[in-house]
Amino acid sequence: MISGKNTIGNKLSNQGDVTYKTFNPKTNKETEWTFFEATKFEINEAVELATKAYKVYKDVSGDKKAQFLETIALEIEALGDELIDTYCKESGLPEGRARGERGRTMGQLRAFAALLKDGSWVEAVIEKGQPDREPMPKADIRKMLFPLGPVVVFGASNFPLAFSTAGGDTASALAAGCPVIVKSHPMHSGTGELVSSAIIKAAEKTGMPNGVFSNLNSSGIEVGQQLVKHPKIKAVGFTGSINGGTALYKLASERDEPIPVFAEMGSINPVVVLPSALDIDGDAWATKYASSINLGAGQFCTNPGLVLGIQGNKLDSFINTLSEEILKLEPTCMLHPNIYTKYNEGKKELSGQDGVIIMADYAKETSDNVARPTILKVSGASFLLNTKLHKEVFGPFSVVVSCENSVQLEEILNHLEGQLTGTVLGSESDLNTYDNVIDALQSRVGRILFNGVPTGVEVCSSMVHGGPFPASTDARFTSVGTSAIKRWVRPVSFQDWPNKFLPKALQNANPLGIVRLEEGRYTN
Amino acid sequence: MISGKNTIGNKLSNQGDVTYKTFNPKTNKETEWTFFEATKFEINEAVELATKAYKVYKDVSGDKKAQFLETIALEIEALGDELIDTYCKESGLPEGRARGERGRTMGQLRAFAALLKDGSWVEAVIEKGQPDREPMPKADIRKMLFPLGPVVVFGASNFPLAFSTAGGDTASALAAGCPVIVKSHPMHSGTGELVSSAIIKAAEKTGMPNGVFSNLNSSGIEVGQQLVKHPKIKAVGFTGSINGGTALYKLASERDEPIPVFAEMGSINPVVVLPSALDIDGDAWATKYASSINLGAGQFCTNPGLVLGIQGNKLDSFINTLSEEILKLEPTCMLHPNIYTKYNEGKKELSGQDGVIIMADYAKETSDNVARPTILKVSGASFLLNTKLHKEVFGPFSVVVSCENSVQLEEILNHLEGQLTGTVLGSESDLNTYDNVIDALQSRVGRILFNGVPTGVEVCSSMVHGGPFPASTDARFTSVGTSAIKRWVRPVSFQDWPNKFLPKALQNANPLGIVRLEEGRYTN
Repeated sequence: MISGKNTIGNKLSNQGDVTYKTFNPKTNKETEWTFFEATKFEINEAVELATKAYKVYKDVSGDKKAQFLETIALEIEALGDELIDTYCKESGLPEGRARGERGRTMGQLRAFAALLKDGSWVEAVIEKGQPDREPMPKADIRKMLFPLGPVVVFGASNFPLAFSTAGGDTASALAAGCPVIVKSHPMHSGTGELVSSAIIKAAEKTGMPNGVFSNLNSSGIEVGQQLVKHPKIKAVGFTGSINGGTALYKLASERDEPIPVFAEMGSINPVVVLPSALDIDGDAWATKYASSINLGAGQFCTNPGLVLGIQGNKLDSFINTLSEEILKLEPTCMLHPNIYTKYNEGKKELSGQDGVIIMADYAKETSDNVARPTILKVSGASFLLNTKLHKEVFGPFSVVVSCENSVQLEEILNHLEGQLTGTVLGSESDLNTYDNVIDALQSRVGRILFNGVPTGVEVCSSMVHGGPFPASTDARFTSVGTSAIKRWVRPVSFQDWPNKFLPKALQNANPLGIVRLEEGRYTN
Repeated sequence: MISGKNTIGNKLSNQGDVTYKTFNPKTNKETEWTFFEATKFEINEAVELATKAYKVYKDVSGDKKAQFLETIALEIEALGDELIDTYCKESGLPEGRARGERGRTMGQLRAFAALLKDGSWVEAVIEKGQPDREPMPKADIRKMLFPLGPVVVFGASNFPLAFSTAGGDTASALAAGCPVIVKSHPMHSGTGELVSSAIIKAAEKTGMPNGVFSNLNSSGIEVGQQLVKHPKIKAVGFTGSINGGTALYKLASERDEPIPVFAEMGSINPVVVLPSALDIDGDAWATKYASSINLGAGQFCTNPGLVLGIQGNKLDSFINTLSEEILKLEPTCMLHPNIYTKYNEGKKELSGQDGVIIMADYAKETSDNVARPTILKVSGASFLLNTKLHKEVFGPFSVVVSCENSVQLEEILNHLEGQLTGTVLGSESDLNTYDNVIDALQSRVGRILFNGVPTGVEVCSSMVHGGPFPASTDARFTSVGTSAIKRWVRPVSFQDWPNKFLPKALQNANPLGIVRLEEGRYTN
């Protein structure tokens, strides 16, 4: 049952009197629940509790933390249909997506549990002392990674499970040994409360300290700002808009003690269609991309919002097929009327720019909040001149740019902002012929794909979901995949520390049996 | 021969008419050289050249980059006595120190060359495709680290060689594949110009692109600010004061495209003297610490500026011996009159705080700019109340705090700002008895030492020279040791990329023979 209250460690709390409701975009009505915004006092309570929990939780063994994460996965599953129903009501997304995303969320938790059981992620490095070294003896020095402290996580509107309450940021931070305070997303606070209850149950069952997790409600920006400014918060994870992420990043950098903010933000995910892709598979790629652009009403951070090709009949034919095919697809409901409105505003703004031709704009009648897929076309010259066309329109929308030649295509790539992904469609020999284009694309992205679609982000250790600003605020890290844990840790060196008082990961006998870099060689 | 000009790629340049001079603190006179401040035009020229160089340099093989770094080391050595003489004139430091630091600088360059020859530092991770996976096929995904782009390095006043022009920041950034623009330190611009000439010679001899290195002079802050704000600069390395580093960090975070700044800043490096250290070795530790505090006129970032013990006769005896011993040592010349003045101001301010007792203040006559070693004593209660006493006084200076008990000691540690190092003097059994104290210390530092002195930072892969703010602006990285390379790189994933077009580090056959994480296992 959803109470609408804040989860502060193992208790529910509603001290304030400011409330808000979530919204069902399919029925175009508010949901039945009322949520209580966290007060200043509650925010402070959650942070103090997390700080206390950190002192214990940072030293909990990898195996115990793994058990905690695995139990969270089971408790999420145990929420059963109430979770699925609430998810669907608060997002307008279909049941299949809800079940799939729940599976992904559980898979992420288990991936971090596996990482913890293996234990090697702490990057232990050991260089023993050399008391006889000339001209100076060398001390025994060993280092490994330790958690930063309490972390704040801002969930994403478009992934109520996999990138929210118990999503990738929370899973990776808990795995690292950092207590987490989630600023609940106001569009799916009911889903968030249910997932929070699963986390608390798991924490109690596995004996984790009270305060290892809290979930605070808020429909505005104040609660988030207060959390980021709180001196006892040591890092921030965020998935959302460029404006929101950049604002938090700047807030964190202006603190007396600046803290790291990893914000995964906007991206238009350029797709470069090279001539041989058009020669061989033009229609097939157009059909595939129509689906990718319309998938989930285009509400993915890896949605292909920009397609770049070299002008000619074949590109025109590709654009025509893409436009025809996307109009055959069923348009779907967006997450929230606000997102729907913003989509239409963005679409209108870009459609009205000089030189833009509207190639497809779904015209049939639709229900409330259903996004009409749109394809625009523009010349390379117009695109280069007008950076408004470089901005993300969150929804089933893509701009196809018809470039004069590969030099202009390369120039466009060099002028793009940072992106999560970049895709190349073509033959292997194209990679030779257009190496400057490929090089330019690679320099702008966190992930580069060959003959595929960027939507669908695999959770694995080789994944980079991040990229140069504004794709993320720190391109040196990823928010998807097991390496995401590295955002919440810092290395500490131990010099001449007695063996038996070292953390187990650094002791001579390697009692954890982990992979370590010893005297320059990997061993276990 | 020192021209006083800026080094912009392979040419010398003096387009401006603003000049300044360096200063010999031993003779208390300006040196013979005049330096030309870089103009806006020259700054832009250096950045444009670095951007062009990056396109080539990022793809230079590890072996070729290693040859470049090794040749820089040789060319620095080939500068011979002119370098040593200039270093001594511009710093007031003795010849032995100059030769030692030159050796360290060459050692750092060679350590990064060895890292490049090995090649495994790129953290290649390979997870092959599984086309038959159910319910969805898994793409082939591989990732590795790539250089960020042109980097700006601000050298340190106190290490004209090892943390300046060709110091650790430059060596690690060049190793990563990032062109470097050094903002020359105004206290040793002559030394900087000589080292720059060695780097340029090495770049030419080993066929590196013009612009891979530049060195710009400036006595003020404008040149540095313009460099950090330049949109084509992608990261910043800094060693120096908290004010300077924080200002650059904030400047970088306010850019349209924020960039990472790694600033290694202030630290008072707390030393916890536990009772058994006083019982067994009190006098020996006092003598050793007197030397460590006075070493190099205390001008080290790891200088022990704070000693914490539990009150009693033995602590008093330790303080007395420390004070007596430090007055027996030869006081030495500081780097510059400005540093000397600042030292005396800081010393005066802290000496005048409530409850502070001056235990030692060298009183004999000295030459110009010679720093008089100083030891202050204060109670734990006074120290806790007065954060002025927590501030670094850069010089041969230390505050000894006499705590009521271990609870107060722990409380003090919990209230300290972030530190580069923390040291524990005691017996092994103390580590058990005082585990709360040790825990509190570890949470504030990047490196924790047992029964040693924090001065002397080994260059190795297990070293952490960094720590929670304000020790550094990003505790997730180190500025000393081979891991320092990680500050200048970001991961990129390749999805379904054809094998022969992958970077060599990611190709199936592992042609570089590096250690890679393949399907979750380390192999080579």
